[in-house]
Amino acid sequence: MDIVILGATGSIGRQCFDVVQNLPNVRVVGMAARSNETSLMEMADVLKPRFVTLYDRDGMEGLLECASMVGKGDLVVNAIVGSIGLRPTLAAIGAGAHIALANKETLVAAGGLVTSAAKEQGVEIRPMDSEHSAIWQCLQSSESDKNSIVSDVKRLIITASGGAFRELSREQIEKAKAADALKHPNWNMGQKITIDCATMMNKGLEYIEAHWLFGLPYDKIDILVHPQSVIHSMVEFEDGATLAQLAAPDMRQPIQYALTYPKRPKRNYEYIDFTKPLTFSEPDYERFPCLSLAMQAAEIGDTMPAMVNALNEQLVSAYLDGKVGFYDISAIIEKAMGAYTTKQVLSVEDVEEAEAWAIDFHKKMSFSNPL
Amino acid sequence: MDIVILGATGSIGRQCFDVVQNLPNVRVVGMAARSNETSLMEMADVLKPRFVTLYDRDGMEGLLECASMVGKGDLVVNAIVGSIGLRPTLAAIGAGAHIALANKETLVAAGGLVTSAAKEQGVEIRPMDSEHSAIWQCLQSSESDKNSIVSDVKRLIITASGGAFRELSREQIEKAKAADALKHPNWNMGQKITIDCATMMNKGLEYIEAHWLFGLPYDKIDILVHPQSVIHSMVEFEDGATLAQLAAPDMRQPIQYALTYPKRPKRNYEYIDFTKPLTFSEPDYERFPCLSLAMQAAEIGDTMPAMVNALNEQLVSAYLDGKVGFYDISAIIEKAMGAYTTKQVLSVEDVEEAEAWAIDFHKKMSFSNPL
Repeated sequence: MDIVILGATGSIGRQCFDVVQNLPNVRVVGMAARSNETSLMEMADVLKPRFVTLYDRDGMEGLLECASMVGKGDLVVNAIVGSIGLRPTLAAIGAGAHIALANKETLVAAGGLVTSAAKEQGVEIRPMDSEHSAIWQCLQSSESDKNSIVSDVKRLIITASGGAFRELSREQIEKAKAADALKHPNWNMGQKITIDCATMMNKGLEYIEAHWLFGLPYDKIDILVHPQSVIHSMVEFEDGATLAQLAAPDMRQPIQYALTYPKRPKRNYEYIDFTKPLTFSEPDYERFPCLSLAMQAAEIGDTMPAMVNALNEQLVSAYLDGKVGFYDISAIIEKAMGAYTTKQVLSVEDVEEAEAWAIDFHKKMSFSNPL
Repeated sequence: MDIVILGATGSIGRQCFDVVQNLPNVRVVGMAARSNETSLMEMADVLKPRFVTLYDRDGMEGLLECASMVGKGDLVVNAIVGSIGLRPTLAAIGAGAHIALANKETLVAAGGLVTSAAKEQGVEIRPMDSEHSAIWQCLQSSESDKNSIVSDVKRLIITASGGAFRELSREQIEKAKAADALKHPNWNMGQKITIDCATMMNKGLEYIEAHWLFGLPYDKIDILVHPQSVIHSMVEFEDGATLAQLAAPDMRQPIQYALTYPKRPKRNYEYIDFTKPLTFSEPDYERFPCLSLAMQAAEIGDTMPAMVNALNEQLVSAYLDGKVGFYDISAIIEKAMGAYTTKQVLSVEDVEEAEAWAIDFHKKMSFSNPL
């Protein structure tokens, strides 16, 4: 199988680099990265792809060319961070390749567009997120077709570590710095997603992603806090059985599964520590308002999730730069949701317009009210 | 689908009666029971089978006739308690029906005979034990054929509640009565199996059963104590993912799955209580020597498991009658294992000979050393 890796120098991209070296049947023919040229060239030296490119939002030609290099039976890994990942996903679908998707923003912003394009082309969208991969693995025990709407599913249970601030009070969280939010208890990930974990926006985005990936209504998707991150998500079936996927936190398992599905080749991995209890609790929407905002955006639908996602990207970046506080993220998103008028998502342009509105809203906020 | 229920008035049989009433496509055409004629006739009044029979070890003609009533595409539920279940299993396989197996003694005593007969006839052996059903459900996420040897499985993890005496010291267990052993913390089951849970012989029998059902060597089967009985067993795959099946303890889930596989029709069921932690520990072979004896018998193979299983049946019965103590069960089994010479299992007669030896050994023990 020929594959292309988009976002090759990010956290998922680098782990994908590790994984493919142990898969003799996988040949990397294209690689694209936004930054870290040196690291990209080092990886390219090992993998010897035909095509390597750097990209940014204003220079996406190489990225889109890379995304459409492979076709039927081959696979594009989209490990791009942020909403810039949408166009390459659509380009890859257009070329007929399966997608291994770590770029959840693609489905959050344009789930309807992407899933209907994929269906039309007979393309599989294989999740690379640990939660969605877990659900996908559990769904193998469903009677339904493995990649479409599942009639015997009562609900999906997406587990959440609760992020770096899980045990802090609202007052403590208010005072915490971005550096504290970056200390994720279980996972070692990129900065953007680690902050999204701390606000629990990440879980809200995953909630929307699950809706599109598995074709289930939102009232069949629940969030359950599980601090140990051993159970990565579950599927409860109509007959009373719940299937769960467990693993020591290591993205290389879901990454490999997306590349080798339905096979499970041998890997070296850390064993689960069963000496520690597994605990669960309901999410706290008071301390983590981003989660309920994302769920509201999901219910509203149309361009609302795209706008919220784009605004969140701006705000996370501002938070990392120390320009806004933790609860400013949710406060500004809430304000924007009140001010924004949604429209149907009929094209990428509709999504990009919503994103532009969010960026503009963020600029005006920063200008009128420097925090 | 036409089905036959053997052992209709036992614990599994009665729950099977509940389950089939909610399955419009399942027609019960035969029922057999060892005891409780009134209850059998009441169920028959509801289900209207063509054939109803009572049986005992010396009058199995009706039972065997009942077991062979249905053929290809149909199903025989074997919910018989004890080693008497072997001949009807072979009769049903001979007739070409799939088997839904709650009678684990069938596989413990004659796993090789039964699985090779089933393979020859193209018959599925579908587990009805909660643990083996859990494993079967998790194995749907394997790349291999769903009912045969699984190459991507690192190990099966059979969970064990630990039984009624899980938290007692060896001294306390020594003094405990059969009535205490019958108080299972999580499951409401028949007497024989509840005592086997208390001694953990049940887990040893399940270990052997799993070996035959899933075609895995014993070094790929582990036992893990999990007092809450929420996770009913797990499968660890070679790629580092572990799949687990969870449910509130209710045998009707695995019973229904065996009848409707691969479908999962809607049932009323109790939700899992996620407010309580899930905990795990290694089994204690000191306090529960029956478990290690069963594992030793498994390793020795041939007729040894059949002998141990038959002797255990005698001893559980004697323990229920107050004639032997808790640790006499393991002590006598250990003694018998030392005295017994195994032979290969080439026929049912070989199994029955081993069982007769066990019964004889038990009689001599009781005579020479009235406990």
